[in-house]
Amino acid sequence: MRALALVVASVLAAGSAVAAGPERPRAATPGDEVVRALAATGKAGNRAFEWVRRLTDEVGPRLSGSPGDRAAVAWGLTLLRSLGFEAVAAEPVTVPVWERGVETGEVLEPVRRTLVLTALGGSVSTPVGGLSSEIVEAETLERLDEKVRQDPAWAKGKVVFLSRRMVKGDEKNGYGAVVPIRTEGAIRAAKAGAVGVLIRSVGTDSNRIPHTGMMRYEEGVPRIPAAALAAPDADLLSRLVERGPAVRVRFTLSCRELPDGRTANVVGEVRGREVPDEVVVVGGHLDSWDLGQGAIDDGAGVAMAIEAARLIAAMPRRPARTVRVVLFANEENGLNGGKAYAAAHASEAGRIVAAFEMDAGAGRPTGLAVSAGKGAEELLRPLARLLEPVGAGALTKGGGGADVSPLGRLGVPTLSVTQDERDYFDIHHTANDTLDKVDPVAVQLSAAALAAAVYHVADLPGPLPRAVPGKPRRP
Amino acid sequence: MRALALVVASVLAAGSAVAAGPERPRAATPGDEVVRALAATGKAGNRAFEWVRRLTDEVGPRLSGSPGDRAAVAWGLTLLRSLGFEAVAAEPVTVPVWERGVETGEVLEPVRRTLVLTALGGSVSTPVGGLSSEIVEAETLERLDEKVRQDPAWAKGKVVFLSRRMVKGDEKNGYGAVVPIRTEGAIRAAKAGAVGVLIRSVGTDSNRIPHTGMMRYEEGVPRIPAAALAAPDADLLSRLVERGPAVRVRFTLSCRELPDGRTANVVGEVRGREVPDEVVVVGGHLDSWDLGQGAIDDGAGVAMAIEAARLIAAMPRRPARTVRVVLFANEENGLNGGKAYAAAHASEAGRIVAAFEMDAGAGRPTGLAVSAGKGAEELLRPLARLLEPVGAGALTKGGGGADVSPLGRLGVPTLSVTQDERDYFDIHHTANDTLDKVDPVAVQLSAAALAAAVYHVADLPGPLPRAVPGKPRRP
Repeated sequence: MRALALVVASVLAAGSAVAAGPERPRAATPGDEVVRALAATGKAGNRAFEWVRRLTDEVGPRLSGSPGDRAAVAWGLTLLRSLGFEAVAAEPVTVPVWERGVETGEVLEPVRRTLVLTALGGSVSTPVGGLSSEIVEAETLERLDEKVRQDPAWAKGKVVFLSRRMVKGDEKNGYGAVVPIRTEGAIRAAKAGAVGVLIRSVGTDSNRIPHTGMMRYEEGVPRIPAAALAAPDADLLSRLVERGPAVRVRFTLSCRELPDGRTANVVGEVRGREVPDEVVVVGGHLDSWDLGQGAIDDGAGVAMAIEAARLIAAMPRRPARTVRVVLFANEENGLNGGKAYAAAHASEAGRIVAAFEMDAGAGRPTGLAVSAGKGAEELLRPLARLLEPVGAGALTKGGGGADVSPLGRLGVPTLSVTQDERDYFDIHHTANDTLDKVDPVAVQLSAAALAAAVYHVADLPGPLPRAVPGKPRRP
Repeated sequence: MRALALVVASVLAAGSAVAAGPERPRAATPGDEVVRALAATGKAGNRAFEWVRRLTDEVGPRLSGSPGDRAAVAWGLTLLRSLGFEAVAAEPVTVPVWERGVETGEVLEPVRRTLVLTALGGSVSTPVGGLSSEIVEAETLERLDEKVRQDPAWAKGKVVFLSRRMVKGDEKNGYGAVVPIRTEGAIRAAKAGAVGVLIRSVGTDSNRIPHTGMMRYEEGVPRIPAAALAAPDADLLSRLVERGPAVRVRFTLSCRELPDGRTANVVGEVRGREVPDEVVVVGGHLDSWDLGQGAIDDGAGVAMAIEAARLIAAMPRRPARTVRVVLFANEENGLNGGKAYAAAHASEAGRIVAAFEMDAGAGRPTGLAVSAGKGAEELLRPLARLLEPVGAGALTKGGGGADVSPLGRLGVPTLSVTQDERDYFDIHHTANDTLDKVDPVAVQLSAAALAAAVYHVADLPGPLPRAVPGKPRRP
């Protein structure tokens, strides 16, 4: 009891020091020792890799509404319970259900060649027997519009091929810049009169492995089939188009949309020692695309969230506030898990002091990213220093992730441990998203940094300044 | 005429210098200038990349006896003629014809999971509907034999899974060490009573892209279906087997052997200025596996051979001997092109002073490898020095390639320009063998080094010391 009083006193003292301004050195707190201990768990006693391995090997792919998704929810509930978390529950979420089918492609003219492609998530099927057509190429959506302005018949009855290339380490041609060809391509091509759309995979590899991902249709615009070509196949098409004569392709997709399904966000808690009704959420998304095993997207995030909470629960002193693990449903094709969570917990939002999300792969930790109100970064500078030993000392803006963005819009500060993402988009949304892509040490270091950061925030003397409404970091 | 006499005189002088021993500096020859000029063509005026591009884009995959193979022969004849080569001809070769069909795989128990696999070249099909069985794993052929010694029923009625891993940059686990699981696995597993064999792909990547390649059956041993798993799928199987319970898989192959077909070695010459009936052969293999486009295996070799001869023909002074381009048939699954060539040219073998083969990808040149009689390396040291400016100054043993190995057994010295092969087995025999894997500068530098080396050997005052019988470098 005496120890606790001392702890509380020093936490309060530390709080005052921070409030007095960043220049004045903040006194070390007993919490700092816990945070340091947590940050040091990356190499020993850290089970993050084990959780990714188990999720990928025991469950595997888990697209929303699929049998794998249901198995993942059961897996999550069982694991959280077996780890002794409190208030373990499945909170219902309604999700779109879409099934991939046969997918084949070929160049018909001027040469015959197999094309490796995959349906974009949500695409309608082609006619049985495939869609055969001449292709017209535009690098970007803007170029497409320009071509149509010059010649309104340019894409009529044809397949539009959007060939923009994502480039590693080049922000101007990064994911955010290139991904609209995937999300908006079918709408824009259909408006131009096209009967189908093929895009160059949004990714940074050069494998015969295409990248799927969410695409949209628009009310009143024809729904045309949409698929992504593997990078080498897109390159081939570009070379053939450049040299002429006209290039004809055929592609076949038998994917289909089914009636909405029910799944769940999986939650579990490590109750806080002082103010248990104040909550720090830490999550990743439990669903994945269907092509791979969902190891880096987002098995790693799920594993880090679970492991962070487990490590915190194992500390001799729990943080003041409750740490709540949330394994979100349906991040990939709807975000219904994140939306349902925010809706169901809107009345509690004022007591959710922060929401961490990990959804950027399995790389080493590099820092802490924060989307919160004014002054939050200054308040977190001491934490950043505590994370320096694991390489995560950088403090940047733009924390969180898609699933916690609806909480962010309710004013909840959103955070994430940033990671080395250099190779992330080589693998993202492909069949190649498998366990061998996860370096055990890297994911464990990131889990350790996350544990330390979550503990620190859950143990701050006062809540973080509330955030201004944020946007998702990654669609 | 006077110029020619001078040239001949200095060539002869240079020859004497070499004969006198490696210590005494050899006098520079006019040929050296040509060799230097050829070596310097890597960055400008070199069309090697153009030939790979054309072969892969215009013809594509070209497995022996397939329509692509026939198209490649026509392509080669047309190109060699259009480049002005002499004695352009198709020399007939009989080849095995094998067709890939449907290929699917899945884990049935203890989890359900898709397995990415591909039939090994020459495999028989599975029963219609697939082969379902428990798997038993052995890392190597030796471990398989050991398990069977311990328990003769170990593999009876099961699918043997050979999981040995090829490791980049580790000679002990390099291609030569690991490839017997592919070539011999079906025989050894069938002898143990297995009904099928799955191997970990012989490759150094970690993509969901399996590596095909030649496998053998043995007279009197049951012919069982054989397929290679992509590395991540092999890893998954190993983890499942390690943890138990029993792992059951199903795989389906509908590949088949057809009656032998006819194709051709494509040849063309740049006639020598002094002794045109003495010949330096320079070749690559025109056939490829069916999964990719045959860009690095061996479009690059074909392109370098053609370009070396073209560059030599364009020099103001031709070499003393004839340079003969040979684009070999059927290297991948039979070596019938190389065998037929040696058989058809056996009577001429004494006048084939050397045979260069390029079949190690599209990387930068690193040196010259030589399989020849005693003294050949000393004789080639001046050439090695001339190749230093393009990074190809190393002189090593073990030159040639599979296609020229039958010539080697007739005593013909076999050579190759060695190349940077670090990434070669990431791609080798996969769908990923596409044009984007060829760096134009690298392949052009290697073609330049090859041109220089071929010219030098074709212009040596005397023939190279005859080789002792050699073995193929790469099955």
